[in-house]
Amino acid sequence: MNQELIFEQIKEKRSFLCVGLDVDLDKIPTHLLSEEDPIFSFCKSIIDSTASYAIAFKPNIAFFETYGSKGWEALEKVSNYLSINYPNIFTIADAKRADIGNTSSRYAKAFFEKLSFDSITVSPYMGKDSVEPFLDFKNKFVIILALTSNHGADDFQFLKSDGKPLFERVIQISKKWKNSKRIMYVIGATKVDYLKKVRKIAPDSFFLIPGVGAQGGSLKEVSLAGMNDHCGLIVNSSRQILYADNGLDFAISAKKEARKLQKVMEEELIKKGII
Amino acid sequence: MNQELIFEQIKEKRSFLCVGLDVDLDKIPTHLLSEEDPIFSFCKSIIDSTASYAIAFKPNIAFFETYGSKGWEALEKVSNYLSINYPNIFTIADAKRADIGNTSSRYAKAFFEKLSFDSITVSPYMGKDSVEPFLDFKNKFVIILALTSNHGADDFQFLKSDGKPLFERVIQISKKWKNSKRIMYVIGATKVDYLKKVRKIAPDSFFLIPGVGAQGGSLKEVSLAGMNDHCGLIVNSSRQILYADNGLDFAISAKKEARKLQKVMEEELIKKGII
Repeated sequence: MNQELIFEQIKEKRSFLCVGLDVDLDKIPTHLLSEEDPIFSFCKSIIDSTASYAIAFKPNIAFFETYGSKGWEALEKVSNYLSINYPNIFTIADAKRADIGNTSSRYAKAFFEKLSFDSITVSPYMGKDSVEPFLDFKNKFVIILALTSNHGADDFQFLKSDGKPLFERVIQISKKWKNSKRIMYVIGATKVDYLKKVRKIAPDSFFLIPGVGAQGGSLKEVSLAGMNDHCGLIVNSSRQILYADNGLDFAISAKKEARKLQKVMEEELIKKGII
Repeated sequence: MNQELIFEQIKEKRSFLCVGLDVDLDKIPTHLLSEEDPIFSFCKSIIDSTASYAIAFKPNIAFFETYGSKGWEALEKVSNYLSINYPNIFTIADAKRADIGNTSSRYAKAFFEKLSFDSITVSPYMGKDSVEPFLDFKNKFVIILALTSNHGADDFQFLKSDGKPLFERVIQISKKWKNSKRIMYVIGATKVDYLKKVRKIAPDSFFLIPGVGAQGGSLKEVSLAGMNDHCGLIVNSSRQILYADNGLDFAISAKKEARKLQKVMEEELIKKGII
């Protein structure tokens, strides 16, 4: 995967939508529960029904892990299904990993080799040598938590050193790491005021934006504040799409929700002169 | 699990050793590779041979995850084996997780319910509401990354705000969170100068200390700097024990290495008047 291919997808689909796969067996349509692997069946249907509007898919690893090795089997199937059927769609393992170097290498192998994700979200707390093992993999991207969408973001991410909040330092320092062209950043949609500021610090980087919809962020505001000339935004929606309907027509409803978001994104891409 | 039981184990075994389970199929004795589940077989042998000197076991989740769902199956067996055969030994899922609240809840369920770990390591970057879902589980502990043993620790953990480095802020702020009595902290053994300082800020907390041995930290120095009246230290060793020998006698060699470390720990516990 490379940035050009992501941009191609954005222009082709007139969208910068990422569909988050947060699969909750208590919320999926009950008729799927009798399938051999309900988690995979649900993901497959959601993927197929939204792929024409999505430029990225983002399995939330916790939601698989909570079902143990069976959940990991489903994750393997999802990763495999995506790489075979939708090789041009960017895939994100939303895993928030990172550890000392030799351990991060193991996580990188898990998500980039054993599974075939194009990228992974990582926590920056342990610094450079905890992130670089992920960046050693060619054609793979690392998405570093900078400014997150939750309340707890205020606890540490805004602590100022030399006049700059931690999330800014994370961006500035990580931009100096090797292969940093393959770094993207998580910037929460609930922090639109800061998105503009962050765009100045990282004019060319892609931002993964969670928090639109269920968490309260506005898509239009986010686009206005964060879009650059090659879009530079990947906006995630999970619950709004996945659980639009829990009946037999869940996939059709998911498609409608994805299309709704895509329509707004199309307008914003036109405004910016990208399409 | 509770702190009293950990302290009982420390006094009984005259040790504060944690055996880290970083299982690498390229390093384990080759005769194990023909077993049905080499990862589990290796862990089981290491656990049985070192349990009389260990007060904690710490599977490093990355090393399981790198083998995909098969690795997770092995992890389930290891967790199950520990809880059935060694219910008094503290178990740590070294997973470095944390995410927004509803996702952290899923990780907590994965490691505390689906698996039966007593504790999990978490990254503090996303703040209070990313950690509290783990603390909601009674009798379970959360081990927050404060000061890690790797070089990258310098990148962000020492950034000062209001005169205090980030790792100190993490400890001070997290001590105010609910159920914070069940918080422990990771303090790298390679940072002994700071361990004394941290002990003043968190006089009663248990510290998980990685980095002794292969990473260069000294056990005696760590004990002198960090021990409190109820020990307060859980010192991890992984590679030194696991890969002491890769022949048929690997378990005996692992036991010898564990005993060597326990002997030093015993001296330190005596010096401190704990035993």
